[in-house]
Amino acid sequence: MIATNAIQFALQGDMFHCPIKGEFEYLSDALILIDLNGNIAATYQPFDAEYALARDELKLAGKLTELTKGQYLLPGLVDLHCHAPQWPQAGKGLDLPLYDWLQNYTFPLENRYTDLDFAKEVYGDVTKTLLANGTTSAVYFASIHREPTELLAQTCLDVGQRAFVGKVNMDNAEQCPDYYREASIEKALYETELFVNNVFSLKGNDSGLVSPVITPRFVPSCTPTMLNKLGELVQKYDLHMQTHCSESDWARDYSQTQFGKTDIEIYADAGLLNNKSVLAHSIFLTEKDVEMIKRYNAGIGHCPLSNMFFANAAMQTRELLDHGVQIGLGSDIAGAPSPSIFRAAFDAVSHSRVREEGVDVKLSASDRGTAGSRVSFIEAFWMATTGGAQVLDSKTGVFAKHYHFDAIVLETNKDVGNLRIWPDFDTPKDILEKIICLAQKENIKRVWVQGKQVV
Amino acid sequence: MIATNAIQFALQGDMFHCPIKGEFEYLSDALILIDLNGNIAATYQPFDAEYALARDELKLAGKLTELTKGQYLLPGLVDLHCHAPQWPQAGKGLDLPLYDWLQNYTFPLENRYTDLDFAKEVYGDVTKTLLANGTTSAVYFASIHREPTELLAQTCLDVGQRAFVGKVNMDNAEQCPDYYREASIEKALYETELFVNNVFSLKGNDSGLVSPVITPRFVPSCTPTMLNKLGELVQKYDLHMQTHCSESDWARDYSQTQFGKTDIEIYADAGLLNNKSVLAHSIFLTEKDVEMIKRYNAGIGHCPLSNMFFANAAMQTRELLDHGVQIGLGSDIAGAPSPSIFRAAFDAVSHSRVREEGVDVKLSASDRGTAGSRVSFIEAFWMATTGGAQVLDSKTGVFAKHYHFDAIVLETNKDVGNLRIWPDFDTPKDILEKIICLAQKENIKRVWVQGKQVV
Ligand SMILES: [Zn+2]
Ligand SMILES: [Zn+2]
Repeated sequence: MIATNAIQFALQGDMFHCPIKGEFEYLSDALILIDLNGNIAATYQPFDAEYALARDELKLAGKLTELTKGQYLLPGLVDLHCHAPQWPQAGKGLDLPLYDWLQNYTFPLENRYTDLDFAKEVYGDVTKTLLANGTTSAVYFASIHREPTELLAQTCLDVGQRAFVGKVNMDNAEQCPDYYREASIEKALYETELFVNNVFSLKGNDSGLVSPVITPRFVPSCTPTMLNKLGELVQKYDLHMQTHCSESDWARDYSQTQFGKTDIEIYADAGLLNNKSVLAHSIFLTEKDVEMIKRYNAGIGHCPLSNMFFANAAMQTRELLDHGVQIGLGSDIAGAPSPSIFRAAFDAVSHSRVREEGVDVKLSASDRGTAGSRVSFIEAFWMATTGGAQVLDSKTGVFAKHYHFDAIVLETNKDVGNLRIWPDFDTPKDILEKIICLAQKENIKRVWVQGKQVV
Repeated sequence: MIATNAIQFALQGDMFHCPIKGEFEYLSDALILIDLNGNIAATYQPFDAEYALARDELKLAGKLTELTKGQYLLPGLVDLHCHAPQWPQAGKGLDLPLYDWLQNYTFPLENRYTDLDFAKEVYGDVTKTLLANGTTSAVYFASIHREPTELLAQTCLDVGQRAFVGKVNMDNAEQCPDYYREASIEKALYETELFVNNVFSLKGNDSGLVSPVITPRFVPSCTPTMLNKLGELVQKYDLHMQTHCSESDWARDYSQTQFGKTDIEIYADAGLLNNKSVLAHSIFLTEKDVEMIKRYNAGIGHCPLSNMFFANAAMQTRELLDHGVQIGLGSDIAGAPSPSIFRAAFDAVSHSRVREEGVDVKLSASDRGTAGSRVSFIEAFWMATTGGAQVLDSKTGVFAKHYHFDAIVLETNKDVGNLRIWPDFDTPKDILEKIICLAQKENIKRVWVQGKQVV
């Protein structure tokens, strides 16, 4: 039995999580105990021997919160790919080609962050908005500037979001504008290593809530020397790494034309890949790429909504899931407008369905799509939680002993939002699917990160 | 000058609307005057001679409401295709094939509406939820039952939603289950004509806020006699008509196999088409079909999100817009989960982009998609407002004299939702695009229908 005084608080209510890919567990009227460090001490179901006594003792100690009927406890969501400085641009310019979008909107905007007041305003809002949408872990691209990026890391600590924050590196004069490019490789590496150490030693970051991430923007932005030197940093400190990978025809062709290699081969050769790498997009992968990603145990950040606008094709999500590649979801703010990972989960399903069926009415049904490529809602929710956490090598996403308690309470009563449950004829699977399809910020009533309530 | 006592109220603030397809108008700090019948008496911009005097007099008379900075007045949204009785099913069973979905979920659910308490509960909630999402005009499929469908019509009147409500007709024993099918053609026609007259004479419906709609479910559900007799009713009373049209490979093939005709040919031959017909989906149209739709001045209810799940292909929206076919948007609750027409507008864009780019990474870029098929955000918003109203032959969707005042106030301040405006660098076009991409129920602060505030 667990000693009550080792428990910070406990929750009783209906819970969903997805420990196993493609499956879900519904824990009806379960009990979850959070220890003094914000980790899960135990979960009990009503049929467990310990349940009744634990609940009674915790209630007596004033440490028990009971969820109301129609509220559901879910693991917090993981956003593997968000450009924090692009937040003011969310929902803007999506009619532009990627190149124009970057040059005319994105780079000028990212360059504004040397203004620390502006950085403070935007970073405060984007982190709080993601939390309010249920994103308890976020992987951020910031800008090329060290100090504003340290401010982002500090902001994540202040608002209590588990975060993985990268100062962007881009030094290729042929692809980056003069006003928004590293001054030199030496300066860039000095700043990047300083950034890494500064984030590790941020005040209040003893428990490692915020981690630094090595962040080469993508192959075209970086010279080979830059990639190699960043790879050395990844190895030296065993760091997280994030970048864009084979996002579009253009990006794939660039690497082949310039280097005769795929993006994955380039990143691997530079020493950038490890078991905590986040490869955003990864649309045009070769079979060998897939094997290499698996060998390194690296992970993919799938951003379906952004793919609809900028990737030129649909990701082979079905095949990657079946091959056991690590995969989670990303919002890709602002390549897509929505900060909600519920939305990303829904779009992962819908884009896979469009891929399965095809689009062109002029083709026969058998020639139109790719049979068997659909992804289920449960798989999408697994990617949004457990899958994303696995990519990051992070102990979240599952309600099990020793995992960090990162969680949200979803409200489904009909005075809120657009999500309606009919207890007479909705099964637990129906309820979880409805949540994935229809949950909005309005429905998210509470959010905890590492056992601390932050919304 | 307009006499102040002929004005019910006036609003002053920033407004958007799309009188012309593909364009938008931004009216900065404009004034809109609503007459005693709920129609627009005038709109003035600050440079108009009448502006200052009208504003001062209306303010003095206590009839002026000023929107705050960051609020925008938009035309109310038009939902051309919503199955009201399927509301409890929104977000459920979307993994099923259409046939199983209908037989296992939809038909049993629709058959519950003989229980008038259940009908009252669901219809009260769905109409209020659509209004709260900004849908001021909705076109509803109900169930095959007359009385519950009259209850839906009455509910729309009670909550103040402009609505077009149809009792569903389905009598083909080979395609409809025994428990959910018309008892006989004679009975069905008697009930349908009674329904039409009862809706016209509903208490409180003098101004015609709610209209009856002839509603053959789709070709497979109806015998030819049923379609012909319903066509006679359409002609006799000059009624609105709604049905599903060439939604999928299966539906298209059914009509060809059984009758050697397309859906449009079948509907035209039965006398069902006129300038107020709503043809939901319309994915697999022939060139001749398109010409016939134009000749009848009928309209299409485009339901992009539902198409991703059930249509087997993407609609040729680009070509239909360019041909000048009347077209608006539908939620297709519960073939798609979201009751928001903002969401439908966004999805019209994203599905058109997927169609343009294609999905299959194994094809070369030039073979993958259909070049030039994208739809712009502004076109999508036009469909959501003006386009939908034109389909219905309804004087809404535009802020102009004599139009009904159906409108919403959208709140963009950063304490609400996920939509952020940066006045320093967002143009009016950026603002409208952000609204289309990110507006949620949370952002909709007020809703008027026919000059009456209903939210
Ligand atoms: Zn990105
Ligand atoms: Zn439908």
